[in-house]
Amino acid sequence: MKVVVIHAAKDLRIEDRDEEAPGPGQVRVRVARGGICGSDLHYYNHGGFGAVRLKEPMILGHEVSGHVEAVGIGVSGLVPGDLVAVSPSRPCEACRFCLAGMPNHCLNMRFYGSAMPFPHIQGAFREVLIAGASQCVKACGLSPAEAAMAEPLAVALHAVRRAGDVFGTRVLVTGSGPIGCLCILAARRAGAAQIVATDLSAFTLGLAQTVGADRVINVTEPGGLDEYHAEKGQFDVALECSGAAAALTAAIPALRPGAVIVQLGLGGDMTLPMQAVTAKEIEIRGSFRFHAGFAFGVGLMQKGLVDVKPLITHAVPLARAEDAFHLANDRTQAMKTQIDFG
Amino acid sequence: MKVVVIHAAKDLRIEDRDEEAPGPGQVRVRVARGGICGSDLHYYNHGGFGAVRLKEPMILGHEVSGHVEAVGIGVSGLVPGDLVAVSPSRPCEACRFCLAGMPNHCLNMRFYGSAMPFPHIQGAFREVLIAGASQCVKACGLSPAEAAMAEPLAVALHAVRRAGDVFGTRVLVTGSGPIGCLCILAARRAGAAQIVATDLSAFTLGLAQTVGADRVINVTEPGGLDEYHAEKGQFDVALECSGAAAALTAAIPALRPGAVIVQLGLGGDMTLPMQAVTAKEIEIRGSFRFHAGFAFGVGLMQKGLVDVKPLITHAVPLARAEDAFHLANDRTQAMKTQIDFG
Amino acid sequence: MKVVVIHAAKDLRIEDRDEEAPGPGQVRVRVARGGICGSDLHYYNHGGFGAVRLKEPMILGHEVSGHVEAVGIGVSGLVPGDLVAVSPSRPCEACRFCLAGMPNHCLNMRFYGSAMPFPHIQGAFREVLIAGASQCVKACGLSPAEAAMAEPLAVALHAVRRAGDVFGTRVLVTGSGPIGCLCILAARRAGAAQIVATDLSAFTLGLAQTVGADRVINVTEPGGLDEYHAEKGQFDVALECSGAAAALTAAIPALRPGAVIVQLGLGGDMTLPMQAVTAKEIEIRGSFRFHAGFAFGVGLMQKGLVDVKPLITHAVPLARAEDAFHLANDRTQAMKTQIDFG
Amino acid sequence: MKVVVIHAAKDLRIEDRDEEAPGPGQVRVRVARGGICGSDLHYYNHGGFGAVRLKEPMILGHEVSGHVEAVGIGVSGLVPGDLVAVSPSRPCEACRFCLAGMPNHCLNMRFYGSAMPFPHIQGAFREVLIAGASQCVKACGLSPAEAAMAEPLAVALHAVRRAGDVFGTRVLVTGSGPIGCLCILAARRAGAAQIVATDLSAFTLGLAQTVGADRVINVTEPGGLDEYHAEKGQFDVALECSGAAAALTAAIPALRPGAVIVQLGLGGDMTLPMQAVTAKEIEIRGSFRFHAGFAFGVGLMQKGLVDVKPLITHAVPLARAEDAFHLANDRTQAMKTQIDFG
Repeated sequence: MKVVVIHAAKDLRIEDRDEEAPGPGQVRVRVARGGICGSDLHYYNHGGFGAVRLKEPMILGHEVSGHVEAVGIGVSGLVPGDLVAVSPSRPCEACRFCLAGMPNHCLNMRFYGSAMPFPHIQGAFREVLIAGASQCVKACGLSPAEAAMAEPLAVALHAVRRAGDVFGTRVLVTGSGPIGCLCILAARRAGAAQIVATDLSAFTLGLAQTVGADRVINVTEPGGLDEYHAEKGQFDVALECSGAAAALTAAIPALRPGAVIVQLGLGGDMTLPMQAVTAKEIEIRGSFRFHAGFAFGVGLMQKGLVDVKPLITHAVPLARAEDAFHLANDRTQAMKTQIDFG
Repeated sequence: MKVVVIHAAKDLRIEDRDEEAPGPGQVRVRVARGGICGSDLHYYNHGGFGAVRLKEPMILGHEVSGHVEAVGIGVSGLVPGDLVAVSPSRPCEACRFCLAGMPNHCLNMRFYGSAMPFPHIQGAFREVLIAGASQCVKACGLSPAEAAMAEPLAVALHAVRRAGDVFGTRVLVTGSGPIGCLCILAARRAGAAQIVATDLSAFTLGLAQTVGADRVINVTEPGGLDEYHAEKGQFDVALECSGAAAALTAAIPALRPGAVIVQLGLGGDMTLPMQAVTAKEIEIRGSFRFHAGFAFGVGLMQKGLVDVKPLITHAVPLARAEDAFHLANDRTQAMKTQIDFG
Repeated sequence: MKVVVIHAAKDLRIEDRDEEAPGPGQVRVRVARGGICGSDLHYYNHGGFGAVRLKEPMILGHEVSGHVEAVGIGVSGLVPGDLVAVSPSRPCEACRFCLAGMPNHCLNMRFYGSAMPFPHIQGAFREVLIAGASQCVKACGLSPAEAAMAEPLAVALHAVRRAGDVFGTRVLVTGSGPIGCLCILAARRAGAAQIVATDLSAFTLGLAQTVGADRVINVTEPGGLDEYHAEKGQFDVALECSGAAAALTAAIPALRPGAVIVQLGLGGDMTLPMQAVTAKEIEIRGSFRFHAGFAFGVGLMQKGLVDVKPLITHAVPLARAEDAFHLANDRTQAMKTQIDFG
Repeated sequence: MKVVVIHAAKDLRIEDRDEEAPGPGQVRVRVARGGICGSDLHYYNHGGFGAVRLKEPMILGHEVSGHVEAVGIGVSGLVPGDLVAVSPSRPCEACRFCLAGMPNHCLNMRFYGSAMPFPHIQGAFREVLIAGASQCVKACGLSPAEAAMAEPLAVALHAVRRAGDVFGTRVLVTGSGPIGCLCILAARRAGAAQIVATDLSAFTLGLAQTVGADRVINVTEPGGLDEYHAEKGQFDVALECSGAAAALTAAIPALRPGAVIVQLGLGGDMTLPMQAVTAKEIEIRGSFRFHAGFAFGVGLMQKGLVDVKPLITHAVPLARAEDAFHLANDRTQAMKTQIDFG
């Protein structure tokens, strides 16, 4: 089978690997679609991010769907032919964070396509994937493209829950890439009263509006969030998806005292106006991956309560995987780019 | 009467003002003690901080105690001779933040000795103070020196409540000046299981230990918090009292995933390792002044449940007020310096 | 003008009163629709409920809409002709609960049509109503019938917020009368993953399904909630709208450990299985009226995000007001019955 | 070895059992002290409580301390001679509640001396106990009598945490038996501003005062909590330790709107004034056993921050175990009665 391997920045190769048989409790999935995530791009563009660096070749990818081909001993509820969304999260279920209900902080996490431990955790951009049955959520009624959105949707759902109860609140989304737009969908679904989205790109802001932003602001234009500065600020919640200090800094005067910023965007160090954060008693909460919500997101898509289809702008055949990475880098024309393994 | 007026950085003057009579609901207080706070020092050293700048002469001071001399019409519960701690916080009780239970974010706040609005709000470093009866908390059984600690104690109590429930938690206090040491007292009172304090000064760390830190770490020495880095970190809560980015940054690897940082220290911009904040899902919460707890703190001191006396290291007569500011600037020998108006 | 006055149980009269002019900050509203609430029915059927008893004649009604006819001095933002929903809640904005952000517990509340204080607070079932401008929310785009649903919708929105974050949770609604059905709408809007509703009446359960219950259970039939008892129970949240101990008791085995019950239904004393509540660490939270959400609900209806129209089953002319009360008592054919003042 | 076995109500026997050797990860503990808990008394007096009934002979007891005699393979940190407090809680660490951080709701819990599953879980009133090393907390510096208080102290600590942040709050404790008095100690430690305790027995109320209640009220005397009824009530938190509906009902008018009642006392059905609960938006939260806090409590005793000694009123030799149960039943002279296995 073919797999997509990153060797170093800009060194992406399609290679062959042997297929395996599913063990007990496992299934073999013929991968259909694989979405390219910001972290895949970081490996491709820069060989990593922050302290996370490639030290050996690694199969990329953690946003995949596919069809069950074979099931191992002891698997129930899945049969060959089922379309499934595959969760890339494999916590140990035994460490103190797993037992505290925080598996996303598992001390022994094996998340697909991650260079954090060494040896690296190999990813899911492969024609055939052996996965635990408990990682697979049936996605009948969805297209493989939608099913492959379950993982980033789970990230957005987790972030919205990190914000606390957003029902009836005014929400600012800074950074309207794929995660930002999924946050708009999630916040809308959770009953936000008003959603304003910002970005640098007219293309992504157009899609932000399509998926539910009441208003979009291109921060390259003057004025920006100025009108929200009155009476110490208006927004109850900000979902910071850009990873850019400028976006977070611009948001603060627009937030009311006591507002919550959920920081999902992974940037490096940021220089922040902490005097204003202190004086306004703002809360900045990191949000990392997810610990529930994967199946919930699939269910929301199945019931038509969340529609991710407008965000899937491109599908590129496996043979041209590197083109997919080039596209995914271009925020003026691509939102979510997927590799088509079919 | 004499008052302590700041005209510009390093330009501190003792001036005369006319005494006034208390109006309805007011009392006249003969001030006994006035503690010098970090913000008083900022005005004295630099003429302000951040965007808050002196634009006209301002009487300093907001940590005062004294004896009631006369009461206005409609005042009950206070009689001449009562020792009182005077709260410097005067919210309007009518704006939307007051009505939301957030009076510390009052849109019309008149906090003593504050250059934020213009005209500035004159402060309480004066021999005689006209105050609302509702600002005055009876402090019988305390010394005037202790009663003048009610305000910074309220700040510490508010910060500990901002952290959520600290009962049984491991708490890190970064910056062991007066506010840091009061946070140690408050966190101990709230049932923290372990308290570790950091600072640059051996003198302040000694007092931190006196008031209840289980362990102190001088961050000028190598090693620092390294031992707390194991298994993604150990502390549940950090109370950041230094306003220094280096202190906050050093704390992050020592915090467990999901930990809470309460930022009380007022610094300027800070460059923070936001990737770690995000990946560990840390919460940074500003804490500003207080909105309850002033009377609670007085009660804690009266019952002997919090002992602030070791922190009051110096009292300087009003005539030598500027010396008091010099002392307060010196973290190698002074913790809380008060002006003695007696 | 005509008003609807309750003198004692079953003694409802239409009487004449003089019209008044709006004072400063007030508007005169020509009432269009007035919904009959459970508490109106309690006064009509029994002369009160619990310790709340009629002691003098009282104009009923607190769910009204109408058109602005005249505006007093100092009113901006409202002009004659505007359709408004009128909030019946008039807290004092000065007592300690108002200042703590809990105006629904105001010590001096003047809620329309309430016999709790004496003299009673007169209600809004009258042809012309003088109201504070701040009580009036513009409802352009809605019908008067919908606008008169703003108050019970606010009650449901408040109850859902009392439950905490319901996004992605499994919600049980016990009692599917008007408040139960509005809770279904509110919980759906707030992102509940699954909603199951119970009642004794096939008619109301049919409407529960219309407005968004995934499943309805008629508790007069055997079995009931049995299937949800597995593994200590399945629901995360119960919204108890019946006020009947039997409904709450039946819910408990179907709730997971740590689940939240919001008690909105006003019954009298209830005999509850507290051993199970204790052992499962269930939380029972009272929910009373609302303290925000009135305008939010109007906005949800205006944007089409909540559709209350299926619940407004009857409109009865003012002249036949007593018929309206008879209808409202009949849960086999009426959901929300309104008096048409037009 | 001798063990204390309950066969049926009032049928308590001292029997012989074979000693066992510790397996891997286990230790053999020579039991020193075993406290008699309310549930032990229920088995002795009534053969069970509610739906929990004895169906076969069961060794009683779950509040024990003792000295390590031998350690199994793989045990580190414990050596023969160590005094330990032994936690009776043995969750499976694999079910969904364990993985959600709620091990006290474990689907496969094996809590010592519990008739809930069948076969019953045998208890710890035995001369020699084989326990998992992870159940044992070193208690050096404490007496065996104090160490045997770790379990009920953990119950009280858990209840106080269930109340949320009690720092600075006014706390009512209803029922001043062993659990009530431990709640007083825990609430005091967590910084409660005021603690009022109620009971029917002058003896227990005397001890309540000894361990920190600011005020005690004998509810057999007229008046009771009346003075706290002003302005809708005064207490922020009630810790209900009696299991009696009368105690909870009497508390409600004394609670402020939005107050929290933690229900620890295990009674049967209770008839409650739910109209007042609803109108005051009170929260009733069950509290069951503990899920952390066992080691924390041992540490609090070791540091002298909680002193349980006044509560240990009686120690009875194993040979006269039944006398110990009679004593424990007598609230006019006994608080905590322990069996002395030495």
